[in-house]
Amino acid sequence: MRYDLFSADDHVIEHARVWTDRLPAQLREAGPHVVEDDGREFWVYEGVRSEQMGLNAVAGKTADEYTPDPIRFSDMIPGCYDPVARADDILANGIRASVCFPTLPKFGGTLFATFTDKHLADLCVKAYNDFMIEEWCASVPGLYVPMIIGQLWDPVALAAEIRRCAAMGNRAISFPENTVPLGLPSFFTDHWDPVWEAATETDTVICMHIGTSGGLTSPSPDAPGFGQLSPVVIALANVNSFVASVNLAMSPVPRKFPTLKIVFSEGGIGWVPAAIERADRQTLRHKHWSGSDDLLPSEVFARNFWFCMIEEPVGIKYRYDIGVDRILWECDYPHVDTPWPHSQQAVDDVLGDIPAEEQEAICHTNAEALFRWKMAPVPVG
Amino acid sequence: MRYDLFSADDHVIEHARVWTDRLPAQLREAGPHVVEDDGREFWVYEGVRSEQMGLNAVAGKTADEYTPDPIRFSDMIPGCYDPVARADDILANGIRASVCFPTLPKFGGTLFATFTDKHLADLCVKAYNDFMIEEWCASVPGLYVPMIIGQLWDPVALAAEIRRCAAMGNRAISFPENTVPLGLPSFFTDHWDPVWEAATETDTVICMHIGTSGGLTSPSPDAPGFGQLSPVVIALANVNSFVASVNLAMSPVPRKFPTLKIVFSEGGIGWVPAAIERADRQTLRHKHWSGSDDLLPSEVFARNFWFCMIEEPVGIKYRYDIGVDRILWECDYPHVDTPWPHSQQAVDDVLGDIPAEEQEAICHTNAEALFRWKMAPVPVG
Repeated sequence: MRYDLFSADDHVIEHARVWTDRLPAQLREAGPHVVEDDGREFWVYEGVRSEQMGLNAVAGKTADEYTPDPIRFSDMIPGCYDPVARADDILANGIRASVCFPTLPKFGGTLFATFTDKHLADLCVKAYNDFMIEEWCASVPGLYVPMIIGQLWDPVALAAEIRRCAAMGNRAISFPENTVPLGLPSFFTDHWDPVWEAATETDTVICMHIGTSGGLTSPSPDAPGFGQLSPVVIALANVNSFVASVNLAMSPVPRKFPTLKIVFSEGGIGWVPAAIERADRQTLRHKHWSGSDDLLPSEVFARNFWFCMIEEPVGIKYRYDIGVDRILWECDYPHVDTPWPHSQQAVDDVLGDIPAEEQEAICHTNAEALFRWKMAPVPVG
Repeated sequence: MRYDLFSADDHVIEHARVWTDRLPAQLREAGPHVVEDDGREFWVYEGVRSEQMGLNAVAGKTADEYTPDPIRFSDMIPGCYDPVARADDILANGIRASVCFPTLPKFGGTLFATFTDKHLADLCVKAYNDFMIEEWCASVPGLYVPMIIGQLWDPVALAAEIRRCAAMGNRAISFPENTVPLGLPSFFTDHWDPVWEAATETDTVICMHIGTSGGLTSPSPDAPGFGQLSPVVIALANVNSFVASVNLAMSPVPRKFPTLKIVFSEGGIGWVPAAIERADRQTLRHKHWSGSDDLLPSEVFARNFWFCMIEEPVGIKYRYDIGVDRILWECDYPHVDTPWPHSQQAVDDVLGDIPAEEQEAICHTNAEALFRWKMAPVPVG
């Protein structure tokens, strides 16, 4: 195994009992649970039915088997929803640490903010977080880096949840890349200050996954695809991190919370130098009338931000303009961007020719320092 | 003068009589005309009043004098609206060819599509085009490369206008980077085929300026700025060309019209390699279920697209990944992105260290071939 890998972005597929195992009996029907109907499986919550999308669980399939059509648990390999089975899968690829985003609650945990019953929503958030820390991560000690979600409708409750989970060993929180499209206050308000403060105090890393603002970039809604998901939308997914990072870099957030750590997940890295260059130039050019301060976007990128890369030769070519210390490898298991089960080959194709210490930084040491999570010297599990 | 410059993106500020000089008498009040009121100048058309924004006419000012506040013609240097005065300005910077976008009709000529009276709108489009070819360009022969606008509410009329103006020597048309946000059919329909067909037949270059889709990228509408224009929005303006180019590359347009020539204006170049890399990879990955054909986005970028650069050291560093033959220099006179009156120095700062033939390609020979417009050997005017 040539590369020791720390994946900064993978995805849990929650098993059917994550919430029913934890919600009080009288709320189990209202909370997320799985029902079978006519040979199909549905998640049901607050009267809403949804199915699992095939592209979210392709691990073990080849590209000609990929489909966005709805699937059942039995269509997936167990590693999608079983942390012990997954440990075998990823350890076999040399992946010895993994940060996992939620699926049913949406990648940014935004689903529960749409619940009518906010008491139920609060319990659903806590149930997911308890599942993540006490079940998913605990099942294979040392392998899974805990990452929680929050009560996005209540920043004070969210801050308390960050502190509660930090005491349980939590390292990160999945948070929307932009709150405005979700109908919530922007990062230019002080609305989220309790969250940034709790994250700073507990050294909890903020992970902002593409799409967590509630949408992807869709210039032609009628482009052929599966519902709103077309190859155009997929090709432009990195634009979400481009926009989110420049927006945050120019916002009050890194000014008021200078030690905050923010990861842009699955957004790629190759666009970073162009984003920084224009943002710096325009900040200086429009400083007089706009009242911008002296903190340049490039300084925020180099101090507060990290970026994730799967297979991006051009991004690695530009690594000195991005900052080798800013780049995290990710596997995206079991999603469609994943190179698994060929992670070692995919890493070698992209990183094979760079100096060993840079390989190590991108493959694991950057992430180990960021998440305060030293990988076990010998594979666990 | 070290560099011979061809600017692929400048801006006309139309003088007050562009439309009143050309519209029939009974339509002059309804068409665009300038009125004075309480010391301010307003463009008035179909009962709407608008003012000129300061950032659109900063030529001759220093950064500490920039302002988005409304200005009058007398606040501008004459080169903004007088082609003979402008010739002196730009020739003094070594600029010997210039493609100019409209201002009052909006950069993509989209204003007239919002007119209630479409007969008036049609005459306004033609009046602008006649002004561009017969007045602006004719006033300094050889210096200004004619670029028209079109009747966006009627693709057949637009195609006829492309042919009418091509016979008058026209070389380019300003067209929206995306029609969907304007409430018009997308590039994935055949609605615009008459336009692409006329452009192909007459070898008319399609220029798509950032913002012509009707908006810029504004992740935080409450970010401090001037109305909707904040430093965040300005910093993210290159995202418009990123999205527009990937969208078009994956659309039927370059498949049905393989010789079409499209320029993305003021959108920069540094993001191009990252955009191509992800678009190609995702096209291949999702080919099976989405039915994509074999024409990769990178092939369309290298065959049908050109990109504009003002001051972008990082983009020039990545020029072999973009294609040196794809890069056009632009001045953006008299807008806020312009390096004028220091164009020679700005070009030298960015291109000074690259091989002479690459300097020439980016400064003028790429644009000369694209627009079929050989710069005069000795400065004109």
